[in-house]
Amino acid sequence: MIEIDIRRNLTALKSLQIRANQPDFLLTWEKSPDEIKAVALIAETFKEMHRRRIPFRIFETGLAISIFRDKSTRTRFSFASAANALGLAVEDLDEEKSQISHGETVRETANMISFLTEAIGIRDDMYLGEGNRYMREVAAAVDEGHREGVLHQRPALVNLQCDLDHPTQSLSDLLQLKSHFGSFEALRGKKIAMSWAYSPSYGKPLSVPQGIIALMTRFGMDVTLAHPEGYDLVPEIVDIARSNAKSGGGSFSQVTDMDAAFKDADVVYPKSWAPYHVMQRRTQLLQARDKAGLSELEKECLAHNARHQSWECTERNMAFTRGSNALYMHCLPADISGVSCEHGEVSAPVFERYRLATYHEAGYKPFVIAAMIFLARKTNPIAELERLAQF
Amino acid sequence: MIEIDIRRNLTALKSLQIRANQPDFLLTWEKSPDEIKAVALIAETFKEMHRRRIPFRIFETGLAISIFRDKSTRTRFSFASAANALGLAVEDLDEEKSQISHGETVRETANMISFLTEAIGIRDDMYLGEGNRYMREVAAAVDEGHREGVLHQRPALVNLQCDLDHPTQSLSDLLQLKSHFGSFEALRGKKIAMSWAYSPSYGKPLSVPQGIIALMTRFGMDVTLAHPEGYDLVPEIVDIARSNAKSGGGSFSQVTDMDAAFKDADVVYPKSWAPYHVMQRRTQLLQARDKAGLSELEKECLAHNARHQSWECTERNMAFTRGSNALYMHCLPADISGVSCEHGEVSAPVFERYRLATYHEAGYKPFVIAAMIFLARKTNPIAELERLAQF
Amino acid sequence: MIEIDIRRNLTALKSLQIRANQPDFLLTWEKSPDEIKAVALIAETFKEMHRRRIPFRIFETGLAISIFRDKSTRTRFSFASAANALGLAVEDLDEEKSQISHGETVRETANMISFLTEAIGIRDDMYLGEGNRYMREVAAAVDEGHREGVLHQRPALVNLQCDLDHPTQSLSDLLQLKSHFGSFEALRGKKIAMSWAYSPSYGKPLSVPQGIIALMTRFGMDVTLAHPEGYDLVPEIVDIARSNAKSGGGSFSQVTDMDAAFKDADVVYPKSWAPYHVMQRRTQLLQARDKAGLSELEKECLAHNARHQSWECTERNMAFTRGSNALYMHCLPADISGVSCEHGEVSAPVFERYRLATYHEAGYKPFVIAAMIFLARKTNPIAELERLAQF
Repeated sequence: MIEIDIRRNLTALKSLQIRANQPDFLLTWEKSPDEIKAVALIAETFKEMHRRRIPFRIFETGLAISIFRDKSTRTRFSFASAANALGLAVEDLDEEKSQISHGETVRETANMISFLTEAIGIRDDMYLGEGNRYMREVAAAVDEGHREGVLHQRPALVNLQCDLDHPTQSLSDLLQLKSHFGSFEALRGKKIAMSWAYSPSYGKPLSVPQGIIALMTRFGMDVTLAHPEGYDLVPEIVDIARSNAKSGGGSFSQVTDMDAAFKDADVVYPKSWAPYHVMQRRTQLLQARDKAGLSELEKECLAHNARHQSWECTERNMAFTRGSNALYMHCLPADISGVSCEHGEVSAPVFERYRLATYHEAGYKPFVIAAMIFLARKTNPIAELERLAQF
Repeated sequence: MIEIDIRRNLTALKSLQIRANQPDFLLTWEKSPDEIKAVALIAETFKEMHRRRIPFRIFETGLAISIFRDKSTRTRFSFASAANALGLAVEDLDEEKSQISHGETVRETANMISFLTEAIGIRDDMYLGEGNRYMREVAAAVDEGHREGVLHQRPALVNLQCDLDHPTQSLSDLLQLKSHFGSFEALRGKKIAMSWAYSPSYGKPLSVPQGIIALMTRFGMDVTLAHPEGYDLVPEIVDIARSNAKSGGGSFSQVTDMDAAFKDADVVYPKSWAPYHVMQRRTQLLQARDKAGLSELEKECLAHNARHQSWECTERNMAFTRGSNALYMHCLPADISGVSCEHGEVSAPVFERYRLATYHEAGYKPFVIAAMIFLARKTNPIAELERLAQF
Repeated sequence: MIEIDIRRNLTALKSLQIRANQPDFLLTWEKSPDEIKAVALIAETFKEMHRRRIPFRIFETGLAISIFRDKSTRTRFSFASAANALGLAVEDLDEEKSQISHGETVRETANMISFLTEAIGIRDDMYLGEGNRYMREVAAAVDEGHREGVLHQRPALVNLQCDLDHPTQSLSDLLQLKSHFGSFEALRGKKIAMSWAYSPSYGKPLSVPQGIIALMTRFGMDVTLAHPEGYDLVPEIVDIARSNAKSGGGSFSQVTDMDAAFKDADVVYPKSWAPYHVMQRRTQLLQARDKAGLSELEKECLAHNARHQSWECTERNMAFTRGSNALYMHCLPADISGVSCEHGEVSAPVFERYRLATYHEAGYKPFVIAAMIFLARKTNPIAELERLAQF
């Protein structure tokens, strides 16, 4: 573990251009490279401050609301940790207990729960075309409430995973890469293989691979996306990755062969997801509450997946990577062959070799979330950070 | 939005007679007019302090327990916000997880959960004749615990809605009226129409209309209660309203015609409720867990309600109000025709015209709850408020 | 209520030998007598500080995680109160929402939720041979995480009841005894009857009686364990009690007659539990999710229990105790004949006579938990306590 130089981070932060009045972090591609770096550097600084037991509490009181429209342990605890470290109390909005849905009620409820609220974290990744839209509905509602004096403050919104992006994950991954290679600059020209991998489940969201290809291209990495034919991501996001590669000085390519993607890779990210068109059908079936249709779709997809069991990260294909020693990444939990399932995304020996590395990767997330809220809610965040860090 | 003059509020507070050792806020009619005003003025001051980001945290640590015997989002978040702003951590008592019922266990459990507890908020509005009684059981239990040295402090009890009253709502409404008309004094002689309105649901509690007629009569308002024949409130509470009108210098009248109630009204509060005798039958059926009986009662009531679909607040009957421009009030969520239901309590254009006003109305509630706890738990609340407000 | 002399407690604490780096409190018999006394004295001091409203908050921020694998109200609120008083926010790990089980996932999840976590409280008392083992799995996982730099701090683990011991209960009981008799020394030679008692339920854990016989023998008490034939505790724990009696200067004996146990007793602890061999079968059936088998076992056990309805604490057998006036103890809730059930562990008059005493007994638990966390997480706890207590 490299000890982080807080002073160097503060200096780097001072050179960045950060727009004021950006209360939300919904998609990395809506943020400038400087803004991405700012979140990353603040998160890294918070993590180091936590290690040294220097508090970064900025609120005396206030609520942080979490809205989870999907099961979650890790993200739930990351959000709770981040909110708590900043001085906020977490209140979970349980939609089953409160009968919230889209439409009129979002506008009203968003205001009703926000009178003393400083941050809202939302996870809504089940419905393609819905998750990010819902977040924007909430944002518009609290915008109106704040403008009209209903809310004394505009709560910061944090995307804790939607149908399009998973920014708290991809920024944690970015910090893991920075830590592994030494700096943002060192990422230039490094090859990362974002590869589909076999899993015995189906319906996993697309937001992790989409988040990775859209973000890492901006840091000059050579991003290779690999998946079997038909396992496409949302086309608009693939276009964003391609365009980001151009502007970011990296490259973006696609292959349909895991081994080819691993060839000379510095980093591999083997991870299952459901094909784009399956998620579209699944969304329609979920919205129609068509249980029979969902069960039929699941059967069909699992059969389809089963033809790609060879898409597994093993010592055999890790041998193709640079020095046989690429950094293995995963957002966790991984489907580990012979451990959590019979056949999965990764073999047990490879996972065990990188197990602690994936824990370190996950360990950035609470601090990334805290950094997003901090940056959104402080008018002079860098000066405030300097004060907190006691420099 | 009028900027609140904190100094003026403090001066007004100093002139009020407030009894010591009143740990609970269960029914407005148990409090003197000065005590009602004290809660209202402290709440208004807290709200202004929050707007100016002046903290009013008075506890370093301590629990605030919420007990919800009915679904709730708004009140849950209001209580959580109030507790948090005062420095308390909310712990929800989930009775399903803990098998609490009436009788011996209330006495025991109330003490078991209160060793480090500073406030308890209870919502129990489902059972006529039960909700307020349950609160008094809890109060008696913690009284004994405190007297016998089991509890080092006597937690403050706050009624978050019972079968008889909804004091955190009616005090929020009072502050909305004060803000609208400029002062408590300006309420004298103003006409408020508390009217039943049609809703496609049934079984809504009586506590909101009862709270309104009992409280606003004390401030010299001309209160008109309107409902179709048979939709009576609890007779004892109507008697209280009548008596309060006498002592408060206002008036109280009853009509069976929404339009008549709206005539020259300065304020209208159109809201559905279930008839008193229906709630009595419903309570018996709920206690007997008679699902068939409940379903039969629901069918019967909805059919009965359907005959009163014309009891809707629309531009047509708003035209009868003073200057066609009465203040529309609602505790939210409203049943809005064509928005949240086909036919409801209020037409979409009327609701939209007053939508933000109802948000402002709701925005007082966290501060009202905080004021109730503050007043109950501080031995010298006004001096303490002065200290907190930095005057 | 005796006023606690904080200065005397601090002096006593300074004379104790306490090992450093003991992050967990899992079983009382893993701790030295001095370490037991240290927790007890710190807890008693915290309780007195709370009475005098002297805060003992030591954390600015941080999480305390509770994991309840069985229903709980009292322990849940005790843990929440303890965590809050120390400055931590409670986050409940709901395993249903997060699909955690034994094996690989415990290791991973324990780390994922602990990045900013200072304490973890676990209740797992349903499965004989499982509860304590699970706690050790969590402990090993966070040990590794801390050693490898994944976690910046090693969270303290507190056993909130397992299959073997219930240390937060037995230490509360110890403080109740200290308060009743005046000092630890005064416990020497006092007779405590830990007796089985009839209950209309079955499957109650063994951890309370096991905790009592293992702990009180260490303080020189004459411990008599009484139960009908076949209602054995875990044999290894009975051996520990026997061995502790030898080293602690007390005595340990077993009888199969409640009246004999009560003879000249200074303290009685009548409490139902399920026989050891029944819990073993029940564990197998629960793990196999064999509902029919569980229902069969329940029927069989209740029939067996019914033959021992005479095992009830009444004024009749209380008359056998020293001066007819032994201290009655219970971990609550008790099965009270004619109150919470037809026939139970204790008659209504006896329970009512000691009801407030049992409330006082329960009142130690939040402070015991706080003391365990405090002792585990502070490098110089006694000096820190002195500072907090303002001496």
